[in-house]
Amino acid sequence: LNSANNGMNGNGVHHVSVRAHVSVNPAKLKSHRQRWNVRPSEMSKKTLNPIRAIVDGMKLTPNPEKPMIALSIGDPTVFGNLPTDDTVLQAMKEAIDSHKYNGYAPSVGYQKSREAVSNFYSCPEAPLEGKDVILTSGCSQAIELAISVLCNPGDNILVPRPGFSLYKTLAVSMGIQVKHYNLLPEKSWEIDLQHLESLIDDKTACLIVNNPSNPCGSVFTKDHQHKILAVASRNCIPILVDEIYGDMVFPGCDFQPLAPLSSDVPILSCGGLAKRWLVPGWRMGWILIHDRNDIFGTGIREGLIKLSQRILGPCTVVQGALESILNDTPPEFYQGTISFLKSNSEICFSELSTVPGLNPVMPTGAMYIMVGIEMEHFPDFQNDVEFTERLVTEQSVFCLPATAFEYPNFFRIVVTVPEEMMIEACIRIREFCARHYRPRSQDSHELDQ
Amino acid sequence: LNSANNGMNGNGVHHVSVRAHVSVNPAKLKSHRQRWNVRPSEMSKKTLNPIRAIVDGMKLTPNPEKPMIALSIGDPTVFGNLPTDDTVLQAMKEAIDSHKYNGYAPSVGYQKSREAVSNFYSCPEAPLEGKDVILTSGCSQAIELAISVLCNPGDNILVPRPGFSLYKTLAVSMGIQVKHYNLLPEKSWEIDLQHLESLIDDKTACLIVNNPSNPCGSVFTKDHQHKILAVASRNCIPILVDEIYGDMVFPGCDFQPLAPLSSDVPILSCGGLAKRWLVPGWRMGWILIHDRNDIFGTGIREGLIKLSQRILGPCTVVQGALESILNDTPPEFYQGTISFLKSNSEICFSELSTVPGLNPVMPTGAMYIMVGIEMEHFPDFQNDVEFTERLVTEQSVFCLPATAFEYPNFFRIVVTVPEEMMIEACIRIREFCARHYRPRSQDSHELDQ
Repeated sequence: LNSANNGMNGNGVHHVSVRAHVSVNPAKLKSHRQRWNVRPSEMSKKTLNPIRAIVDGMKLTPNPEKPMIALSIGDPTVFGNLPTDDTVLQAMKEAIDSHKYNGYAPSVGYQKSREAVSNFYSCPEAPLEGKDVILTSGCSQAIELAISVLCNPGDNILVPRPGFSLYKTLAVSMGIQVKHYNLLPEKSWEIDLQHLESLIDDKTACLIVNNPSNPCGSVFTKDHQHKILAVASRNCIPILVDEIYGDMVFPGCDFQPLAPLSSDVPILSCGGLAKRWLVPGWRMGWILIHDRNDIFGTGIREGLIKLSQRILGPCTVVQGALESILNDTPPEFYQGTISFLKSNSEICFSELSTVPGLNPVMPTGAMYIMVGIEMEHFPDFQNDVEFTERLVTEQSVFCLPATAFEYPNFFRIVVTVPEEMMIEACIRIREFCARHYRPRSQDSHELDQ
Repeated sequence: LNSANNGMNGNGVHHVSVRAHVSVNPAKLKSHRQRWNVRPSEMSKKTLNPIRAIVDGMKLTPNPEKPMIALSIGDPTVFGNLPTDDTVLQAMKEAIDSHKYNGYAPSVGYQKSREAVSNFYSCPEAPLEGKDVILTSGCSQAIELAISVLCNPGDNILVPRPGFSLYKTLAVSMGIQVKHYNLLPEKSWEIDLQHLESLIDDKTACLIVNNPSNPCGSVFTKDHQHKILAVASRNCIPILVDEIYGDMVFPGCDFQPLAPLSSDVPILSCGGLAKRWLVPGWRMGWILIHDRNDIFGTGIREGLIKLSQRILGPCTVVQGALESILNDTPPEFYQGTISFLKSNSEICFSELSTVPGLNPVMPTGAMYIMVGIEMEHFPDFQNDVEFTERLVTEQSVFCLPATAFEYPNFFRIVVTVPEEMMIEACIRIREFCARHYRPRSQDSHELDQ
């Protein structure tokens, strides 16, 4: 009994020892007996797709009396009117039949496939070799690798406004600050160079240029690109140029790649098969490393190779087909696509430019047309999101509000749809605008009463 | 002349103004007139591939009198003796001919392709639907997405030692700490569960399990997996299970997927076409989300979807072929692969288990065999790296030193090579060991003299 009272029996000791354990080391116990608490990472929460966020927040209920026309999807294949060339498909089937492209390729791609790309894009002013090409899983991964190798968290990058949303999505998820430089619709969406330069500071790691432009459909002149390069050169900022719409410019306009215009500014040019060859789902992209001034040196090249080893490169079958796709696709195929895009753009532009309250900007390339909305003449709607939402409700036509490109009071039209659909869509947009347009004089008249 | 002396002429003024500008605002000038200084990002520098680092540091000069035999490459396609099935190739060609798989798929994959995977892997104990499948660019991207969604910088993850190096490569590049838990060669590479549990702390975000194992070729029993799950359940740690070698187990052994054994531990199971269908270059992987206890909830699912939008998913042609690949590949194809791997493993094991100084561990699945080196009997070499380096120099046989898997004094043999090559390699390894082996008694005898 004595021993029990002073805690010397087995039970007492056991009891005390458990209490002691609980009270002495709760942190350790807690770490081993916590409740389930699995939360998505900060990075996943910071990976924001503004297009999804805006579109998912819209009430998109088409008018049941009119078949839906989607002018919102940047995928040229959805309507079947713009198939890729048979040469491209044949090259894939030959790659499969060869049995040579089933194993792992180097993480930056087969040397032969890299050389096919470098030969295709090399020119005397900006020569390329296989070692200057990194093959990637689509142009998206090309952009991701390029941003990843050039920028650290806390740095900032300069991106166009309006512009493709992926640049910001990727940068923000990596803790990189985004600064938007303005494009000028009245100057065919050229860069406001003064504004651009005013944004540069010590933390600016990269300038992103997109030419031809999504969503603008604009194509920069050689002269304008010289001026962009001068800004980069003066401030020693490397350039990531997104040229996925390269060569997709209308007859009478020339596409000038950026890199051949500079021998001192280091440039990572991102591209791929998606748009020009009309196979965006195949996920074949690339980075062309232009570094004639030896600024990137081995550091950036090795960094890109290291980063490519995280998930390895694109599908080997497409890599195996790449040489034939690039070299054997007939010029008529490219010309056919461009003629169609130009014709549809002209239809759309001429139809909408006579609609009171709308200001379309005629594109010269890519597959988009931006349309300005004179919001003051459409008092029924707060903004471009409401405008395009109601355009679905009443007319079953869906255009992407340009708020998705950080550019309110515009909407973007994709011009890859079949011609009759383009025409019908324009008629419906005209009707819609006529119904909701309020001329300024009438507004003031009402206000006077 | 007066004006020149008091600095009023053009040159003088110009000279003074430049000096003033430089001295008054050097910070601003510096930001706008810095020199070129483009450096690879910290993330790219932290993306380290230990296999490349070790192999690139080795002097690999084969003996010119003997043809090289590479037992180092985890790619079953390199020797042409293990082609994929014709059904698989036919499915690809049909996907191409259908013209249906050229556009963008949703970033997590076509719903139909996701359902093909969920139907293939669903079972009564762990039912799966299309929404539980995320298609990825190879199993590497599956692992990257799974780590990215579960872990924040500063967290830690538990990975096997020896183990596949990618887990560490990805984690370290994201600022996630890696803790290695031991596998026990004497227990067929089962996990040292006590060691595993001792590593868990408040910052442990995820347990990575690899079964069947690269580099061990081991396959966990159902009983052992129950014990692993008990550790995870007790400590509330979600599991990332890498089952890319799933079903690649030798006759007489059963592959038991992890998820059906637990209804409470949330599990992301990573897999793909690479190994079982022998097409690693095609980059078709997936994550199966098992969450019957609703621990992941919508947060982790939405996080995975968001992360998938960064670079979009795998090649659409392979996605289009997926249903037929999974459903139509004849059982004889899988059986043929497994029989071959078992036969080669038995040859290799029985040859090397009688070599003094070597201790191979017989695998039961995957395509590897780990061989222990009794380093004390090979005084000519400091470690497994030197041992395997000299094996190339003298015998033109290259095995990967297991230092690449954080496990010194072992090397890994890939058993996918043609049988006659396997036999020849074993003969050469035996010769090499006989030449360099020093028995312990002789060592002590020499020391006595």
